[in-house]
Amino acid sequence: MEFELSATADNSRARAGIISTGHGKIETPIFMPVGTAGSVKGIHTRDLRDDIQAQVILGNTYHLYLRPGIDVIEKAGGLHKFNQWNKPILTDSGGYQVFSLGDIRKLSEEGAKFQSHIDGSYHMFTPEKVIDIQRSIGADIIMAFDECTPGDADYEYAKKSLELTQRWLHRCFNQLNNTEPKYGYNQSLFPIVQGNTYVDLRKLAVNHVKEFDADGYAIGGLSVGEPEQVMYEMTEVVTADLPLDKPRYLMGVGTPVNLLESIDRGIDMFDCVMPTRNGRNGMLFTSEGTINIRNKKWENDHSPVDENGTSFVDQYSKAYLRHLVISNEMLGAQIASQHNLAFYLWLVKKARQEIINGNFAAWKKEMIEKLNQRL
Amino acid sequence: MEFELSATADNSRARAGIISTGHGKIETPIFMPVGTAGSVKGIHTRDLRDDIQAQVILGNTYHLYLRPGIDVIEKAGGLHKFNQWNKPILTDSGGYQVFSLGDIRKLSEEGAKFQSHIDGSYHMFTPEKVIDIQRSIGADIIMAFDECTPGDADYEYAKKSLELTQRWLHRCFNQLNNTEPKYGYNQSLFPIVQGNTYVDLRKLAVNHVKEFDADGYAIGGLSVGEPEQVMYEMTEVVTADLPLDKPRYLMGVGTPVNLLESIDRGIDMFDCVMPTRNGRNGMLFTSEGTINIRNKKWENDHSPVDENGTSFVDQYSKAYLRHLVISNEMLGAQIASQHNLAFYLWLVKKARQEIINGNFAAWKKEMIEKLNQRL
Repeated sequence: MEFELSATADNSRARAGIISTGHGKIETPIFMPVGTAGSVKGIHTRDLRDDIQAQVILGNTYHLYLRPGIDVIEKAGGLHKFNQWNKPILTDSGGYQVFSLGDIRKLSEEGAKFQSHIDGSYHMFTPEKVIDIQRSIGADIIMAFDECTPGDADYEYAKKSLELTQRWLHRCFNQLNNTEPKYGYNQSLFPIVQGNTYVDLRKLAVNHVKEFDADGYAIGGLSVGEPEQVMYEMTEVVTADLPLDKPRYLMGVGTPVNLLESIDRGIDMFDCVMPTRNGRNGMLFTSEGTINIRNKKWENDHSPVDENGTSFVDQYSKAYLRHLVISNEMLGAQIASQHNLAFYLWLVKKARQEIINGNFAAWKKEMIEKLNQRL
Repeated sequence: MEFELSATADNSRARAGIISTGHGKIETPIFMPVGTAGSVKGIHTRDLRDDIQAQVILGNTYHLYLRPGIDVIEKAGGLHKFNQWNKPILTDSGGYQVFSLGDIRKLSEEGAKFQSHIDGSYHMFTPEKVIDIQRSIGADIIMAFDECTPGDADYEYAKKSLELTQRWLHRCFNQLNNTEPKYGYNQSLFPIVQGNTYVDLRKLAVNHVKEFDADGYAIGGLSVGEPEQVMYEMTEVVTADLPLDKPRYLMGVGTPVNLLESIDRGIDMFDCVMPTRNGRNGMLFTSEGTINIRNKKWENDHSPVDENGTSFVDQYSKAYLRHLVISNEMLGAQIASQHNLAFYLWLVKKARQEIINGNFAAWKKEMIEKLNQRL
């Protein structure tokens, strides 16, 4: 994997770059649609590529491991073959999902024992096993196995947790170096910077991950309940010390405003379920602000879903989309999800252009004012 | 509306024709995807037109009347504008839906009083009101308001019900003739032949509807619980006496085999929720037989969903589709629905070609053998 820095903004850490992988290039900053179980909910692979113009999508190790299972994905020839997405894929390590299981998971030095949310069966994830699984899935970018602490963890817990994540990182890289890719192309392992909301822990964490000279670095444990300003502060602390010549990925973030604020702080990659999950509930993100399409005010608004939208679904009318969402018609969830993803991809593409054109700061200010509006 | 008979099969009542409407032509025999609440479940209008190649779709008066309501559809400029389907639309009269409500509807000479399945509110459908509603929806083909009897109704009930349907038909045509289309194109009213499973009632019903010299005729009250052979027998009885120069529509039917058997008996138009409803449950219809994609045998079958399929969704693998359906991923329901509709449209198109080529009987025999297989 290579990363080329194309441009940097003045008076900002915002950057435009290009990541090259075995499945093609990714222009950064980029948003990655989440394909939890190997499918971005409600979206055909063809539309993901041609209409939404996604450049890289996410898969979830935890979900894919439980269903369809690694054997099926291996026999397909990897996830790219299984879901027919021929562009780059990133898989998370399952650390966040296991953390989310709460009472039905137990951590030890060895790893995390957990029960399947599907059938209650017991499973064990270790750093080694998670690397092996990600070798079988075959994503271009794979993630280290980490512990993600809750937003309100106290210092002692956060410190002990970080140290565990650091020991696990060594084991992840050892396993990576002792194994080969299964499908003939390289896989890049990204360490995850943890440390909760404690500046000194975040700094310790950054210094530790830098030792591995990885192809890229992720920031985890944010957007898990802490105030937004704290998230931005932690992001700043981390990006200040990360190497400039490697991509930075802020995991699980966020709203369109979160994206712009984080790009400003030097983030290159994002993923979040928000565009699809909120879309299914009838919330639309647009360049003029957010729309709750269930609102009565749209009942007889026969104008397009988004006049400025880039997706073909934007040509349906607001009144029609409102009717579909209120009637629980599948097509409503499909249209709203596809619109939101196309908007997220437009937003990061536009940010990239503005960085290259030297106009990022002014554009961002204007854009955030509009994004904060409720239509 | 005009109907041109292009070809008839030898030793069969099968016909190939062309219906011309204010929204373009329909080549018969045709299958009409069901867009209950103004959307064919899980299918983008674009794919319905370009991928599935539907020529006409159905809307349900009962559902559209309750939600979004007639006011919204009128303000949109009719259903074609509302759901952006620029080809022909047919609406049923709501008779069948009201019949399905069971305990929460009550019939009288005046019409049917019923409670909304959404909020329990009371409503009254009369023949006049149903015509008015269909004027507002603006379908190219609209249906008479009738009573649909259950498959096991006794003779006396069936006879009384038929007489009510006949009196209502007069009122429907009176209302049609006393009102104007709202959107500048003609709307054709099809009477519905009832009579349950009683040959003499069906014959009475046909003779009655013929008096109206309508643009086309529908057969209702079949596929509601009676044996399949009885359905075919009733269809034969009715088509024997219907005028040759008008299209015949068998309502709510059916499986691919039902379609071929009914085409053979002189039917030109069909609608059914089966391709989408069964698709959502993982049942696929193909030219080689039916597939239950949930079956373990497809777990590692990485061949296309349907090698002979005409839709782009047929290029996903069986193993991937099985995974999506079992995981309740929306995309699974979307792929299966789209495949099934594309297959139904392929089947009637192929039947049409074979009728024109003079090979319908031989092709039908061979096809039915394959359709009856379980893969």
